[in-house]
Amino acid sequence: MPDTGERVVPHFQEQLEVLKERLLVMGGLAEERVRAIVDALVERNSEVVDQVQSGDEPINRLHMEVDNRCFKLLALHQPMATDLRAIVAAVKINTDLERVGDLAVNIAEAVRRYLLHPPVKQLIDIPRMAEIAQHMLRDALDAYVRRDTVLAHAVLNEDDKLDALKTQVFRELLTYMLQDPGTIEPALDLILISRHLERIGDHATNVAEDVIFMVSARDVRHHAPGTVEADLNL
Amino acid sequence: MPDTGERVVPHFQEQLEVLKERLLVMGGLAEERVRAIVDALVERNSEVVDQVQSGDEPINRLHMEVDNRCFKLLALHQPMATDLRAIVAAVKINTDLERVGDLAVNIAEAVRRYLLHPPVKQLIDIPRMAEIAQHMLRDALDAYVRRDTVLAHAVLNEDDKLDALKTQVFRELLTYMLQDPGTIEPALDLILISRHLERIGDHATNVAEDVIFMVSARDVRHHAPGTVEADLNL
Repeated sequence: MPDTGERVVPHFQEQLEVLKERLLVMGGLAEERVRAIVDALVERNSEVVDQVQSGDEPINRLHMEVDNRCFKLLALHQPMATDLRAIVAAVKINTDLERVGDLAVNIAEAVRRYLLHPPVKQLIDIPRMAEIAQHMLRDALDAYVRRDTVLAHAVLNEDDKLDALKTQVFRELLTYMLQDPGTIEPALDLILISRHLERIGDHATNVAEDVIFMVSARDVRHHAPGTVEADLNL
Repeated sequence: MPDTGERVVPHFQEQLEVLKERLLVMGGLAEERVRAIVDALVERNSEVVDQVQSGDEPINRLHMEVDNRCFKLLALHQPMATDLRAIVAAVKINTDLERVGDLAVNIAEAVRRYLLHPPVKQLIDIPRMAEIAQHMLRDALDAYVRRDTVLAHAVLNEDDKLDALKTQVFRELLTYMLQDPGTIEPALDLILISRHLERIGDHATNVAEDVIFMVSARDVRHHAPGTVEADLNL
């Protein structure tokens, strides 16, 4: 091992790999929940809505497990430099993934209300938003595991598409509401759903930013110059 | 110093105090931005809306500074047990406070649109929501600095009030929209504002949960039994 000031601790790299694998599992679950609830919306399947609404437990368990793994790695191995950044990134990514799970529940609540009314319109943009958000999430996690900043930057660019679709959904539904007050209630829920999907994209963006920070030690979040190493004289 | 397995590093406790103080400054700024934008909504003051919308820079700078301080403390001092938990909590709290700053910008965008229309109604519940959210944020940060789990639990209880007000605001504005389609656009923005305020409460809740975890090493987030120390054999 090169002299990086790191303690050589047996099993550390293995444990770090397990941590990454658990984040991937969690991301897969989160993605699957988003896919399921938007399918349930399109197919008007209230049984699936129930499943999503009550099915947050596996992600919540993983959330605690990952947090515990991060603490354990920090406390027992006292990692430095790259490894330290990878674990602090995992703490943050873990929070983002747990929130995506919560957002699936929020979407389920809105879908439940939406299904009480006749359909406002054929849904095209909302399923597209869901696909983009899922894709961003998957790419952001792949970027984390592969330390791939090119992929992470691609995720950041995708977020603009999601923003544009959100605005389009809002304007279109507003037109429906103004023309026919009978659509106000269900249209409101579609607007809320589109905002929840946008927030899932925001969480994927957070993950991508953490990856860029982890790999390059450069903070892209607020266009900061320089590296953290330089700032901290590490 | 008691034998807790911690390295005795000069200045560590001082640096930890500075970190806490910076989080308090950041929390104060976030709270002030929420107060300013809701006052601007009530007083229909679009100048203040501009200021809030473009004034996220100080919080963003603090966000990077706090992150850097956390990394520095982790990398240079390799803290254990309580101190490690305090710093990981700071990483998370930092993220929550930065999001509150972002939410003030989101609220400002909705207020800007709202002010293009005549008032829908006298605003009572939304300013109350803002007060509760600010109060929760302040208490959650005080709980962090003072390691006060009683106060942290009080913050968790406040969140129900915010939820109830959000539902009340939604129902009332829905009635307005159904009765007078001319109120649809501005009422939609009030609904979005109330949701943003609810999310500020959620961030305060996150902070309070981190405090309870930090002090007691018990994860209250998903009603987990036992302590992390026990789980990890620390």
